[in-house]
Amino acid sequence: MTLAKPFLSDNAAAVHPKLWEAMRKADEPDNPYDGDALSGELDAHFTALFGRECAALWVATGTAANCLALATMCAPHGGVVCHAEAHIEVDEGGAPGFYLHGAKLMHADGEGAKLTPQGIAAVIDPIRNDVHQVQPHAIAITQASEYGCTYSPDELGALGAFAKERRLGLHMDGARFANAAAFLGGSPETAARSASGPVDSLAFGFIKNGGMGAEAVIMFDPEAAMQVRYRRKRAGHLQCKGRYLAAQILAMLDNGLWLANAAHANAAAQEVAAGCADRLLHPVEANELFVRLTPAERDALRSQDFAFYDWGADSARFVTAWNTRSEDAVALGKAITAL
Amino acid sequence: MTLAKPFLSDNAAAVHPKLWEAMRKADEPDNPYDGDALSGELDAHFTALFGRECAALWVATGTAANCLALATMCAPHGGVVCHAEAHIEVDEGGAPGFYLHGAKLMHADGEGAKLTPQGIAAVIDPIRNDVHQVQPHAIAITQASEYGCTYSPDELGALGAFAKERRLGLHMDGARFANAAAFLGGSPETAARSASGPVDSLAFGFIKNGGMGAEAVIMFDPEAAMQVRYRRKRAGHLQCKGRYLAAQILAMLDNGLWLANAAHANAAAQEVAAGCADRLLHPVEANELFVRLTPAERDALRSQDFAFYDWGADSARFVTAWNTRSEDAVALGKAITAL
Amino acid sequence: MTLAKPFLSDNAAAVHPKLWEAMRKADEPDNPYDGDALSGELDAHFTALFGRECAALWVATGTAANCLALATMCAPHGGVVCHAEAHIEVDEGGAPGFYLHGAKLMHADGEGAKLTPQGIAAVIDPIRNDVHQVQPHAIAITQASEYGCTYSPDELGALGAFAKERRLGLHMDGARFANAAAFLGGSPETAARSASGPVDSLAFGFIKNGGMGAEAVIMFDPEAAMQVRYRRKRAGHLQCKGRYLAAQILAMLDNGLWLANAAHANAAAQEVAAGCADRLLHPVEANELFVRLTPAERDALRSQDFAFYDWGADSARFVTAWNTRSEDAVALGKAITAL
Amino acid sequence: MTLAKPFLSDNAAAVHPKLWEAMRKADEPDNPYDGDALSGELDAHFTALFGRECAALWVATGTAANCLALATMCAPHGGVVCHAEAHIEVDEGGAPGFYLHGAKLMHADGEGAKLTPQGIAAVIDPIRNDVHQVQPHAIAITQASEYGCTYSPDELGALGAFAKERRLGLHMDGARFANAAAFLGGSPETAARSASGPVDSLAFGFIKNGGMGAEAVIMFDPEAAMQVRYRRKRAGHLQCKGRYLAAQILAMLDNGLWLANAAHANAAAQEVAAGCADRLLHPVEANELFVRLTPAERDALRSQDFAFYDWGADSARFVTAWNTRSEDAVALGKAITAL
Repeated sequence: MTLAKPFLSDNAAAVHPKLWEAMRKADEPDNPYDGDALSGELDAHFTALFGRECAALWVATGTAANCLALATMCAPHGGVVCHAEAHIEVDEGGAPGFYLHGAKLMHADGEGAKLTPQGIAAVIDPIRNDVHQVQPHAIAITQASEYGCTYSPDELGALGAFAKERRLGLHMDGARFANAAAFLGGSPETAARSASGPVDSLAFGFIKNGGMGAEAVIMFDPEAAMQVRYRRKRAGHLQCKGRYLAAQILAMLDNGLWLANAAHANAAAQEVAAGCADRLLHPVEANELFVRLTPAERDALRSQDFAFYDWGADSARFVTAWNTRSEDAVALGKAITAL
Repeated sequence: MTLAKPFLSDNAAAVHPKLWEAMRKADEPDNPYDGDALSGELDAHFTALFGRECAALWVATGTAANCLALATMCAPHGGVVCHAEAHIEVDEGGAPGFYLHGAKLMHADGEGAKLTPQGIAAVIDPIRNDVHQVQPHAIAITQASEYGCTYSPDELGALGAFAKERRLGLHMDGARFANAAAFLGGSPETAARSASGPVDSLAFGFIKNGGMGAEAVIMFDPEAAMQVRYRRKRAGHLQCKGRYLAAQILAMLDNGLWLANAAHANAAAQEVAAGCADRLLHPVEANELFVRLTPAERDALRSQDFAFYDWGADSARFVTAWNTRSEDAVALGKAITAL
Repeated sequence: MTLAKPFLSDNAAAVHPKLWEAMRKADEPDNPYDGDALSGELDAHFTALFGRECAALWVATGTAANCLALATMCAPHGGVVCHAEAHIEVDEGGAPGFYLHGAKLMHADGEGAKLTPQGIAAVIDPIRNDVHQVQPHAIAITQASEYGCTYSPDELGALGAFAKERRLGLHMDGARFANAAAFLGGSPETAARSASGPVDSLAFGFIKNGGMGAEAVIMFDPEAAMQVRYRRKRAGHLQCKGRYLAAQILAMLDNGLWLANAAHANAAAQEVAAGCADRLLHPVEANELFVRLTPAERDALRSQDFAFYDWGADSARFVTAWNTRSEDAVALGKAITAL
Repeated sequence: MTLAKPFLSDNAAAVHPKLWEAMRKADEPDNPYDGDALSGELDAHFTALFGRECAALWVATGTAANCLALATMCAPHGGVVCHAEAHIEVDEGGAPGFYLHGAKLMHADGEGAKLTPQGIAAVIDPIRNDVHQVQPHAIAITQASEYGCTYSPDELGALGAFAKERRLGLHMDGARFANAAAFLGGSPETAARSASGPVDSLAFGFIKNGGMGAEAVIMFDPEAAMQVRYRRKRAGHLQCKGRYLAAQILAMLDNGLWLANAAHANAAAQEVAAGCADRLLHPVEANELFVRLTPAERDALRSQDFAFYDWGADSARFVTAWNTRSEDAVALGKAITAL
C-alpha cells in the first residue's frame, strides 16, 4: 500500500539511504551480539556528543529503551512519576509494569504533556511517607513531549534540581529527542548537552528519524549501565547481529545526519503550521501538529489525499518526517487555510 | 574486523542478498507496527507451510520468541522442563524467569541435549502433587538441539503424546529449525509438518540462517496467539517498522530459501565431518560439529586461520552457515585429519 | 499504651474471647499447613453460608486475600478497574503490582468510593482495543466501601451484569463485609447471599471484626481456587500452624458471631451519627463515619480523650468496632453536637 | 484428630503457654501494624542478643522471611546459590521466583545439606562473566540444615569470608536456628553471636520452636532493612494486629525461652538417637533424625503409634519438638533398637 501525502506518523517512514549503506557494509563478518567493532564504538561517540561520560546501548524499540533505563532507578516497590498522557503510561501496553516488576506509574499533569516541579510535587507531596503507600523513586519526562513541545534548558534545569533535591532518578524519553535538539539548538553539541544535562538516562530515538530498528539507551551512570546490559539480554533485546543496529546509529551520528533529518522534519512542520496557526492546540516545537478540525474539515482534507490521525472529536494530529516533501507540507498548510 | 574461515557461529553471518532486496522494497510507506501488508501475510504463509492453522508473529530474537511462547503455557507458579544444557537455561540471561514471572526451569537429561519421555518423567514424577513443590506446566525442546542433533518424527511423536498425557504444553525452540527440517526431510512441507506436528508453539529461527533480526513465533492455538500479541508489545518487541522484519521472513519463505540455506550449511557440516568422523562427540545432523581436539591441536588449526570456539577442555565447536564456502569446509576437514 | 475512647480503627481492636477459646482448643496436635481438621471444614461452612459451592482459604491479611483472588482473573498484561480511592490502590503498598506481576490498576470514580457500571464504562470505553493499551480484565469493588457505604443488592446486580457483559472478573474486597451484611440484611444467609451473589471472589474479612490474623479468600470457581492454593504458598502465606487461623474463622461463623460483632459496631456508629447527622460526608451504612470538623473542633474532641484520624484538612474519620462501648459512642456523638 | 507419639514435624506442635499469656496481654488496644509498643521493642532486643545493630521484623512464615531478606541482596537478573535440597528450592512452592522477580536458584552440593566455599565455587566458577549467563548475587544457607546438621563457627567464618571475597550476600535460613544455637553454644549470646556473625540477614524461626505464627527477619544492614519494610507490606505480610506477633517473639526471647525450648527438643532427639546410632544417615545436631528403616520396620513402628514421615524408600525422618515427652523419645529409641 502506498500512502499519499502521509502525515500519519514518523514511525513508519522509510529508512534513510545512508543507513542502508551502513548496514550493507556491516555484512562483513564480525563478532555476535555487541562484541563487534561498530557496537564497540558507541560509547565513545555519545560521550563526545554529550560532553560527559556515558554508555550507549542499542535496542530495537523506544519502549525497551525507556523501560530498561527506568528499571535501574525505580525498585519494584517504588513509583515513577510521568505525565498522565506520557507514552509509557498510555501506549506501551503496560511495559513499565513488566520491566519494573510491578512498580507504579504516578500521573502528573502539565501543559503540553510536559512536567514541572510544581506538577510533580502536587502528585508526590500528598503521599504519606509510610510503607502503605508506594513511594516515588523516579521521574520520566519526554523530550519532545507527546504534544510536540520541548523542555527549554531552564525548564530542564529546574526539573533536574527538583529530582536531585527529592532524590529521584530522572529519565528522558527521547523518541523525538532529535527534533527537540534541532528546535532548541544551534550546534548539535550545545543542544544535546543542554538538553540532556541533568538527566540520568536518555532513550535516544533514531527510528522515527529515519532509522529502521535501533534506538540508543544512554546511561550516564556506569553501574546503572552495567545493569542495563544484563537486563537487555534478559529481556531478549540483545540481538545477535547487533552490528546492524550499531551501523544505523553510527550512520545517524555521522556528519550530524540525526540533526539534519530532524531539522528537515521540523521545518516541514513549520510549513504546515504557517497555514493553521490559529487552529493549533499546542505550540509547534518539533515535528507534530495538533490542529482543531471538525469532522467535516477532516473529511475534506482526506479527500485531498492527506493521511493523518484523528485526535479526539474535534482535532487531528499531523506528523512530519525526515522525508516529508516540502511541497506536501506547504500544500497541507494551504489546504487547512482554505477550509 | 574480518574473520577468515569463520566457524565460530552462524549467528553472526551476513544477511542473505534476497533479504536485503526484500527489505529495500519495504521502504514503501505502510502502516506501522504489524499493521502493514507484509506482516499481514505471515499467518497465511505459515499456515500453508505447516498444513494447519497457525498465527505467526515476528520478533527480533530467539530469546523473545521462546519466552513469549512459553509464557502462554506456564503460569508464574509453574515450571518448564527443559534439558540441563538448553539455551533457555544456559544462555538467555534468565529471560524465562523474567517473561514467565518467576516460573521455574526444571532440568532433564538426555543424549545430545535431547529430551525423552523417560528423561522428563525422571524429573517430574518425583514432584509431590502438592502446593509446596512447583508443578510442571510445559516442556521445551530444541530442534535441532544444542548439540546439533535432531528429533525424528517418531521421537517427536512420543514427546507429543507424553505431553498430552501429562497435560503439559510443548514448545519447540527452533533457532536451527531449518537445519533440522533440511536434515529430516525430502520436501520442505513434509519435513516441516512432521517435525512440528505435535508442538503447541515453535520459535522458528531465521537469523542464524541468513536473516538480520527477525524470528517467527508460531502459535498453533489462536487464544495463546492473542496473548503473545499483547505480551510482545509489553516486552517492547513490537517494532514500529515491523514491515522490515516481515519482509525478511517472507523472503526466506519465498521459493524455499530457508530450506536451501539450511541445506547448504548442513552440507558444509558434512564436508567437515568427513574429515573428523572419529573425533565427533555427537552425530552431525544439522550445522554444528563438536570435535575432540587437544589444546595443541586447536592451536594448530587456529594458526591456519580457522576460527571457532573451544568447548570445554578437550574439544571444540564448529558451526557452518548459509554462506560457508565449501572450500573452507573441506579444508577444515582435511586440516583436522592431518593433525 | 492504652488508647482511651478509641475510634482510630477497628483494625487494632482486641481479639474476641470466643476466638481465644477456639485457638486454645486448636493446641491439640494436628497436621500442618491446611491439612488439619479445622481448615478442612472451611469450604463446607462457607458453601452453606453463601448457598453456593465455594472454596474458602485462610490468609493473614486482607491485602493478600485481595491480591490472591485478583491474580486469578487478571493476567499480568491486563488491568483491574477499581475506585481511585480503593484500598488496593491507595493503601496496600503496591501489592497488586506484585501479585499480579505488573498488571495495571485503572481508576474509576463514584460517590462514596463505590463503583457503578457508568463509572467503569467511562474508564474502559476509551481504551482502544489494541495491544498498545492495557485492556481491562477485572473489576474490584469494596463492600462496605472505603467510605463506609454499602452496595445494595440492586447495585451489585447491575455490576454483576455489567461485568458479565464485558467479560470482566468481579472481585469484592470485604474487609468490612460483615458490617455491610449486617446493614443490608435480615438473616445472615440472605444478606450474604444477596450481597455476594454476582461476584467471582470475595476477600471476607474477620480481623477488623474481632479476629486476630485470619481472613478468608472465598473463590466461587473451583479452578481459580486451585490457583489460589498454589499462589498462597508461593507468596509465603501458607502458615504451618494454619489450624489457628481456621479456628478463628470457624469461631466467627459459629452462631453468627461475625454478624453480631458487626451489628454491634454498626449500632455504635449510628449512636455517633445521631450526634452529627448534619456534618456527615457520607451516609453511615457500616461502622465508619466521615465528619466535617475544623482543626479547632478536632482539638477539642481530642482534649476529651477521643482518639481518631484526621481526614484531609477539614474532616475526621471515626471507626467503631465490635467492642466499642455504647457509652463512648453516645458520648462522642454528644461531644460533636456540643461543639 | 490427636496424633499419638508425634514425630512428624515440629511445625505443627502446640503453642507454648508463655506465648498464649503474652498474646492475651497484647489484647490491650495499641496502634495497628508495627506501630505498637511491642513491635517497637524488637530491634533493641535482637541488637542486644546478637551484639550488633540490627533490625527485626516479624512475618508470619519462614518462606516470607527468607524471600524478603533475599530480595534485598539479589537483583531480578541475578542468582542465589543454595543447596540442591534447600527448603527454598524444594519446599517453598517457587516463592523465591516470586519475591525475587524471576531470579535464579543455583544448586550446590554438600554433605548434610550444608554448603562449603568449595561446593559453591564448583557452581559459580564455571559461570561465564557475561550477560548471557545469570550471575550469582547471594548465597543462602540453612542453620540447622535440612538434615539437622549445624554449621560450626569455623565453617560459618569460612563461608562469610568467601561471600565477602566474591561480593555475594549471605543469608541464613534459621527455621531451626534455635536448635542450632542450642547445639553450638554455652550461653545463648555466644552461640547466637558466633553463629550469625558473618551473615547479612537471618530468618530467625520461632514457629517450629513453640510459636504460633511469627518469625523474625533480622537485617544487619539498615538500608536493606528499610527495603524489607516496604516489601513486607507489598507482599501482604504487614498484619494490622502485629502486636500479637511481636508478643510471641518477645515472649520467646524472655528469659531465654527460645533456647530452652530448643534444648529440650535437641535432648529428645539425642534420646532417640541413643537407640539408633548405627542407623543414622546424618549426625544428629539439632532436632531431626534421618534413620535407615525398611518399609517393614516403619510399619512396625507405626503399629506402635509412632507418627513420622517416610524419607525415600529406605529411611524415615523423625522430628522432636519443644513439647516432645522424654518418655516418647526414649520409647522410640528403644523401639528402633528392638527392630
